[in-house]
Amino acid sequence: MSVTHAAGFVASGVGCGVKPDGATDLALVATDDGVPVPAAGVFTSNLATAAPVQVSRAHLAATEGQAAAVVLNSGNANAATGASGRADAERMCALTAAELGCTADDVLVCSTGLIGIPLPMGPVLAGIPPLVAGRGVSTQHGEAAAKAIMTTDTRPKLTAATSDEGGFRIGGMAKGAAMLAPNMATMLAVLTTDAALDPATLHAALEAAVSESFNALSVDGCTSTNDTVLVLASGRAGRADRGRFEELLASCCADLARQMAGDAEGATKVVTVRVQGASSVEEARRAARKVAESQLVKCSLYGGDPYWGRVVSELGSAQVAFDPDRVSVAYNGVTVCRDGVAAPGLDEAKLAAQMQEREIEVVADLGLGAGVATILTNYIDENMGTS
Amino acid sequence: MSVTHAAGFVASGVGCGVKPDGATDLALVATDDGVPVPAAGVFTSNLATAAPVQVSRAHLAATEGQAAAVVLNSGNANAATGASGRADAERMCALTAAELGCTADDVLVCSTGLIGIPLPMGPVLAGIPPLVAGRGVSTQHGEAAAKAIMTTDTRPKLTAATSDEGGFRIGGMAKGAAMLAPNMATMLAVLTTDAALDPATLHAALEAAVSESFNALSVDGCTSTNDTVLVLASGRAGRADRGRFEELLASCCADLARQMAGDAEGATKVVTVRVQGASSVEEARRAARKVAESQLVKCSLYGGDPYWGRVVSELGSAQVAFDPDRVSVAYNGVTVCRDGVAAPGLDEAKLAAQMQEREIEVVADLGLGAGVATILTNYIDENMGTS
Repeated sequence: MSVTHAAGFVASGVGCGVKPDGATDLALVATDDGVPVPAAGVFTSNLATAAPVQVSRAHLAATEGQAAAVVLNSGNANAATGASGRADAERMCALTAAELGCTADDVLVCSTGLIGIPLPMGPVLAGIPPLVAGRGVSTQHGEAAAKAIMTTDTRPKLTAATSDEGGFRIGGMAKGAAMLAPNMATMLAVLTTDAALDPATLHAALEAAVSESFNALSVDGCTSTNDTVLVLASGRAGRADRGRFEELLASCCADLARQMAGDAEGATKVVTVRVQGASSVEEARRAARKVAESQLVKCSLYGGDPYWGRVVSELGSAQVAFDPDRVSVAYNGVTVCRDGVAAPGLDEAKLAAQMQEREIEVVADLGLGAGVATILTNYIDENMGTS
Repeated sequence: MSVTHAAGFVASGVGCGVKPDGATDLALVATDDGVPVPAAGVFTSNLATAAPVQVSRAHLAATEGQAAAVVLNSGNANAATGASGRADAERMCALTAAELGCTADDVLVCSTGLIGIPLPMGPVLAGIPPLVAGRGVSTQHGEAAAKAIMTTDTRPKLTAATSDEGGFRIGGMAKGAAMLAPNMATMLAVLTTDAALDPATLHAALEAAVSESFNALSVDGCTSTNDTVLVLASGRAGRADRGRFEELLASCCADLARQMAGDAEGATKVVTVRVQGASSVEEARRAARKVAESQLVKCSLYGGDPYWGRVVSELGSAQVAFDPDRVSVAYNGVTVCRDGVAAPGLDEAKLAAQMQEREIEVVADLGLGAGVATILTNYIDENMGTS
């Protein structure tokens, strides 16, 4: 149940020495015969794009949406490294291609880790041949790849699903955990499928899936220089129903996003912020993000304090249509604010118990329209990483 | 050297019992004869405006920019309290007016403290007569008022300045400290002057001063429901040069903003983020705010870590024109990133020493245009307030 779940894909993970602690830090996902297949990518919106993002984008453009492999390293983001960083990312692709027997443009590349430090190319180039040689189709191979891309993650993130009809499969892996150190907040995901789809259909399905999963996840309010989500389609299972594929891909991405939100050391809250009754979906999304990313809301939820005034205050400054006399707020189903004021007859004991839960759902109803959106986030002790 | 520095104003501060610890919590600034004078206000942009903000705005509109007094309470924000909250704020004005001998519309009102809890009107109404009776012109009276509006502040914030030419004076007080508890982040300021100015001129000068001081301050990235800055002009010193007044008012507001940024218990960094070389002042301001409010930048500076990659990453996602190969970053004058990559020949020891300073200036040059802006902020241990 990993990135090798779909027919036609192999994976691998090894340690090459980029990470100082000796953990595995080099991963591969590839077609089993080294032949390129339809592929698509969604990349960070950050304009300070890392070298591997620039290179992967260029390769997908050059091949018009084909790829035979993805090579990934953790421990160093190869970001803010200029022209020599781009050359390093190209060399990773070229060597992987040479080992697999495809062309460099058929290889995509991802990096995650520290920004602003040149990638140690000696270890990386020495590591790629054993990485490629060690590839295999087993779940263990998929798990090894998922482990090798971890940074602050405490566990690998894997997903797999099989369509009831048609029998096509999707597998995937991701990394990205709550920010514990201020260094590494990048999210990477690689998905594979044996459904037969053209690159344009694949890209549209990936964009839709990302918008409802990874883009509805706010871990630290920041968009990394390296964020990348890739999907490759081997076609081994034949043509798939487009709607069914989109649904299953969205469900796999949502599964990975939930694993990312739930992965954090120490005391943590996993929080869903749902805004409904907004003037539009767009406004609901903006308001939900404003609440989810509020440092003050975060502090109150982290402390188990049902201080809904902060939620109302954030909604009021979210630059959306808002009427202070119509808003309601509930925590885990307990309404604490109704029509803009403290809800009468509040069950304080029930509320206090709910605030101690690890999972908190904040529902804010603006009472204005039909716009609904949800943002998933988590709250951790930020200072753990800096002490 | 307080809000009574300008001729024609009296102040007072008493405890009425809103704060559970018995500290003073009711303050007054008024003209010494109870006669209204030109006044102006700048209020929160938050649409969840607290009752006192709604009432003060309405009073300034009704009088076309005249006021005889400001009555303020701390310990309760009278926010998210609906129609009864507005009636409570009106009653505070009406009783103050009755004691001073002016009309209710001549009184402005401010509250700061917890949101969503009805203001305890018994103590407040009982406190107003002794508050008004105790008013006086001394610095001690001004200090008592400044102390009575404190919430998480560890010290009162006072300012005073006298014009070299013309001899007019400005005095002021403010509250608002780094967020230690998730409850109270409101900023309030009341300024007084004896310069003679019409309400429109006073309002324009206040807006300009606020934009370069309080609005260039980011304490927690949140805009409170209660934020209010007021100025009253007695005219006792006669007509003032408009430019000179604007300059002195801006300097008094900047002084209060600096005191707000510097006031925090425990280990703290006071950080100035300056973005230059942006395409426009507007873009420089947006980029500086994005960096200043970044949780990841905050974490790294709090930990004394010169991790400039995070600054570059925030600039890249600030939705401003940005070229990753042209950006430079310096901490306290030490350039750590030049043309998008790690600066060569970095003096690591000097940098490490600078990162331990309490005051850090982050200068980011986008290398694109002439836009410059500065945001002042501070970083504290957020979890202190919730433990």
